Amino acid sequence: MASGSTPAETVDVRWHAHAVSRADRERAAGHKGCVLWFTGLSGCGKSTLANAVDRKLFERGCRTFVLDGDNVRLGLNAAPALLEPRHGAEFARRFGLGFGPQDREENIRRIGAVAELFAQAGTITLTAFISPYRRDRDAVRAMLPPGDFVEVYVKAPLEVCEGRDPKGLYKKARAGEIKGFTGIDDPYEEPLTPELVVDSSARPPDDLAADVIAWLERAGKIPPV
Amino acid sequence: MASGSTPAETVDVRWHAHAVSRADRERAAGHKGCVLWFTGLSGCGKSTLANAVDRKLFERGCRTFVLDGDNVRLGLNAAPALLEPRHGAEFARRFGLGFGPQDREENIRRIGAVAELFAQAGTITLTAFISPYRRDRDAVRAMLPPGDFVEVYVKAPLEVCEGRDPKGLYKKARAGEIKGFTGIDDPYEEPLTPELVVDSSARPPDDLAADVIAWLERAGKIPPV
Repeated sequence: MASGSTPAETVDVRWHAHAVSRADRERAAGHKGCVLWFTGLSGCGKSTLANAVDRKLFERGCRTFVLDGDNVRLGLNAAPALLEPRHGAEFARRFGLGFGPQDREENIRRIGAVAELFAQAGTITLTAFISPYRRDRDAVRAMLPPGDFVEVYVKAPLEVCEGRDPKGLYKKARAGEIKGFTGIDDPYEEPLTPELVVDSSARPPDDLAADVIAWLERAGKIPPV
Repeated sequence: MASGSTPAETVDVRWHAHAVSRADRERAAGHKGCVLWFTGLSGCGKSTLANAVDRKLFERGCRTFVLDGDNVRLGLNAAPALLEPRHGAEFARRFGLGFGPQDREENIRRIGAVAELFAQAGTITLTAFISPYRRDRDAVRAMLPPGDFVEVYVKAPLEVCEGRDPKGLYKKARAGEIKGFTGIDDPYEEPLTPELVVDSSARPPDDLAADVIAWLERAGKIPPV
C-alpha cells in the first residue's frame, strides 16, 4: 500500500474483506432467504397457514420468522397512542400508524423493508397481513431483489371468512362499529399473478402448508428432504 | 370441546399450539438472541467492530445480522427523496427520515424495534449507529425485554476519530458544509451505564471483538467454545 494510506483506509479495507455476505449466511442456513407474503381477507387463515408453514420449516431446521400484527403493532408500526407517552404528541401524530390510507401504505412498506432485512440474513420470513391493495404489495415486490418476494394468496369466499369471524371483526363492521373494513366497505384487490394460490375453504391448513413447502422446494429456496 | 365451538375457534387453538416460540428458535440456534448496540462518534470504529464481532460469531455458527446505515437508509428508514417517486410528496414528507430532531429519534426507534424482532428470532443483532442521544438509546432499552439490549460504547477521543475521518465528514463539518454533526456542532452523550466500553484508540478491532465475545460468553448469551 502507498505510504500515503492512513490507518482509517486500512481499517476500511479490512472491514469489507471480513463482512459476512448474504451468500455466507444462506450457506450456513442451508437454504435461501426469501419473503413468503401471505395475503387475503380477514379470517381467510393467513396467520394459521403462515404458522403451519413456519412449524414445518422449523422442524426441517430452517431459519424462519413470522411477522404479523402481534409483533409489529406494538413496536415498529405502533399506533400514535402507544408512541405518545415516550415520544410526545407531535411525534406520535407524524410517525404513529392508524388506519388512514397513508398509514396503511406505510404499514405495508415498513413490513416489506423489514422482511427484506430478514431475507438478507438468510431467513425465510413469513408475513401475515391482509394487505388488500395491489399497489402496496407490488411496491414491496419492486423494492425487493428479484425472486425474494413470494406472494401467496390465501383465497376463501367472503361468506366463509365472515362465518369464521375469529375476532368478531366482521360483526362489528356489519354493525358499522368499524369503518373501512376489507371485504365489507373497503375492497380486497386479488393478486393478479401471485406465486401461489391456496384455497383455505376447500382444504385444511396442513395440506395448504405442504403446498407452500413443495413450492419452496421446486423454486430451489429450500433443499428437498 | 363443546358442541358450540366453531371451526374458527378450533383453528385458533391449533395455531397457538403449533406456533414456534422464541425459546424454540434459540434452542435451534444454540444461543440467545440479543441486540449488541454499538454507539460512538463517527469514525470511532463502530461498523468495523460490529463486523469483526459478526465474523467471529458467524465462524462459531451463530445466527447474526448487522444493521447499519447501508441497509436501513435505502429501505426502512429511507429519506423523503427516496420515497417520493413511488409514494408521492406528501407521504414522503410525513414518513421519510431526514436529519431533524424528530427524524433522528424515529430513525433510532425503528432500528430498535427491528433489532428486537431479530432478537425474537434468536438472532444476535449488531447495530452500528452513532445514536448520540442518551434519551433515544434509553428508549430502545426500555422498549426491549430485560437483558436484550447490550450497549457497547466504542470510545475514542474526538481527535482520533477526526484524524481517521474515513468518509471526509469531519472535514465537511468543520467547513460548515454539514450542520449538526456529532462531536462538532452537536453533542455526543456518553452512555452512563453501558454493558461494555471498548477503547478503539488503544487496541485493534480484533482485540476489541474478542472482548465483546468474552462478554457474551460471561452473560450466557452464547456457549463457551
